[in-house]
Amino acid sequence: MEILKLGRQSWRYVHPPQICGQGICGGRTEGQGPLGKSFDHIYTDLYAGESTFEKAEQKMQMKAAETALTKAGVAREQVDLLCAGDLLNQNTPSAFSARALGIPFFGMYTACATICQALAAASLAVACGAAGYALALAGSHTCTAEKQFRYPNEYGAQKPPSSQYTVCAAGAALLGPAGTKSRVCISGVTVGRVIDLSVCDPFNMGAVMAPAFADTLAAHLRENQRQAGDYDLILSGDLGKAGQAIALELLEGNGVTDVAERFGDCGQMLLGENKKFFCGGSGIGCAAAVGLGHAYDLLRQGKMQRILLCATGALLSPCANQQRESIPGICHGIVMERV
Amino acid sequence: MEILKLGRQSWRYVHPPQICGQGICGGRTEGQGPLGKSFDHIYTDLYAGESTFEKAEQKMQMKAAETALTKAGVAREQVDLLCAGDLLNQNTPSAFSARALGIPFFGMYTACATICQALAAASLAVACGAAGYALALAGSHTCTAEKQFRYPNEYGAQKPPSSQYTVCAAGAALLGPAGTKSRVCISGVTVGRVIDLSVCDPFNMGAVMAPAFADTLAAHLRENQRQAGDYDLILSGDLGKAGQAIALELLEGNGVTDVAERFGDCGQMLLGENKKFFCGGSGIGCAAAVGLGHAYDLLRQGKMQRILLCATGALLSPCANQQRESIPGICHGIVMERV
Repeated sequence: MEILKLGRQSWRYVHPPQICGQGICGGRTEGQGPLGKSFDHIYTDLYAGESTFEKAEQKMQMKAAETALTKAGVAREQVDLLCAGDLLNQNTPSAFSARALGIPFFGMYTACATICQALAAASLAVACGAAGYALALAGSHTCTAEKQFRYPNEYGAQKPPSSQYTVCAAGAALLGPAGTKSRVCISGVTVGRVIDLSVCDPFNMGAVMAPAFADTLAAHLRENQRQAGDYDLILSGDLGKAGQAIALELLEGNGVTDVAERFGDCGQMLLGENKKFFCGGSGIGCAAAVGLGHAYDLLRQGKMQRILLCATGALLSPCANQQRESIPGICHGIVMERV
Repeated sequence: MEILKLGRQSWRYVHPPQICGQGICGGRTEGQGPLGKSFDHIYTDLYAGESTFEKAEQKMQMKAAETALTKAGVAREQVDLLCAGDLLNQNTPSAFSARALGIPFFGMYTACATICQALAAASLAVACGAAGYALALAGSHTCTAEKQFRYPNEYGAQKPPSSQYTVCAAGAALLGPAGTKSRVCISGVTVGRVIDLSVCDPFNMGAVMAPAFADTLAAHLRENQRQAGDYDLILSGDLGKAGQAIALELLEGNGVTDVAERFGDCGQMLLGENKKFFCGGSGIGCAAAVGLGHAYDLLRQGKMQRILLCATGALLSPCANQQRESIPGICHGIVMERV
């Protein structure tokens, strides 16, 4: 058996699929942030040389995917499965990336938790032999996402302090079987449940997602019989400052107390301390870029041994809003380890 | 090893996950069609007693899921994974179903091919032991889908003869490990690639999806080293009359000639011959209802031994349309067998 089932939500791989290559790219804002050096490619304008932001978003996805394939030395024809998603309606950029790549395609969507869902599904397919190589891919673009979920950035609408800035970034990881030449693997997964504490404010994503993060992290530690100290770093996807504070409070209430000193939030780490980003970065690109860029580098360089990446998603939608519904949150966890 | 990898796109299960319970429900139109008897529940009005069509769509999903669980005698707390999707922006009804069910959740999206993607992912998770029970769930609603992708039905816009009617239906299947008391299993999967022959007409979904169907079916037969005659029935999801004719022509061109006499299209079968539905039914509900209803019944009752369900999806989106893009198609195949 290739899978050790640890509980309802978690499993561990006996022979963990390895990250044979990864690629991340982003916009100028992201490139100028504290983690700028971890990017493979930076687009200096928001259009990335295309005529629309939507096309730019797809271009970033393609660049990340191609970088991952090139680094691994694997041709796209050798990849059996693409698990990809994004924030746009009907996963449009991902569908067009799948068309361009020609790889058998599963469309993934759990908002900003999508990159971890994609890594979970791709690693599962590789671990059990359904795919030789599988590519996980996800990204976001500030101009397409804001336009779709809130207001076009060009309107210059005022935002409250709890807001976050949707980042421009895409990340890809090519997963291959254990034993391939690579220093980083995905050793385990915790699938998140939808948690909804009735937050309705689309400008407070941190409050929406924090309970889901706390729920998934608690489930992960419980089912893995581990403590926070077993990880060098625990990353939330994009809780932002407000969400991170709520998450710590919720975790303490659940008796999980040793998280704070090894807790990083991808959204905050990617953009750094800057008031113009309010509580920090958000969007699929946060967890994708920090998880597959900076965190991957820390493991590859031997600076860390084991990182838990918990991408958080707000299942926000104008359609749900029109139903006068609150915003459900979700968070999927992935264990990345140095081999 | 639980998985036999047969080629790039296909795998077969050594111990096939079984359908422990299924549930389908639909609207009055679908209930009055030729397959009306296979439905577990029919909602006589399009609102299903709710205040909006979107809420009605989610209600149908929940009813299908609850029916599947009840028939299997399995509580929702015993289910480790929910793979669900729909046609609405950000998979809204599925996210709310996941919230209500409380089952760890992967959001799926490849348009009307979503039910087969969900069955593929759920069966994979069960087969390799990542999930004990996994629930696959998908559905569509004529009023929400038409409003989102074309025009609200209430406008009464004229449609060309190549049009199809998005059905109101939802289907769910609870998958459990081999050996559970059940007569029907999922024995294999073929994951589809995105195929795009540059069709741009959102009123001709058959032409968009037929090439993807032909591609997946040809890959399935080739990789499985089977012929069409090895199946009692080959079901396309929702090609409609126009798409079915194109698919047969494309298959003949590829040397696959024995499909016609065992070829059924879920969209046509569900609604029957009626000019008001133009080329037939479409929407996730077609493949979900016919595959998990009528086809499942044929296998369970011993009238058939092996059915190939190929759900077809048009990765249509107003967002893509605004990019002046053509409509990519995709098709995923699932082998359903009598145990």
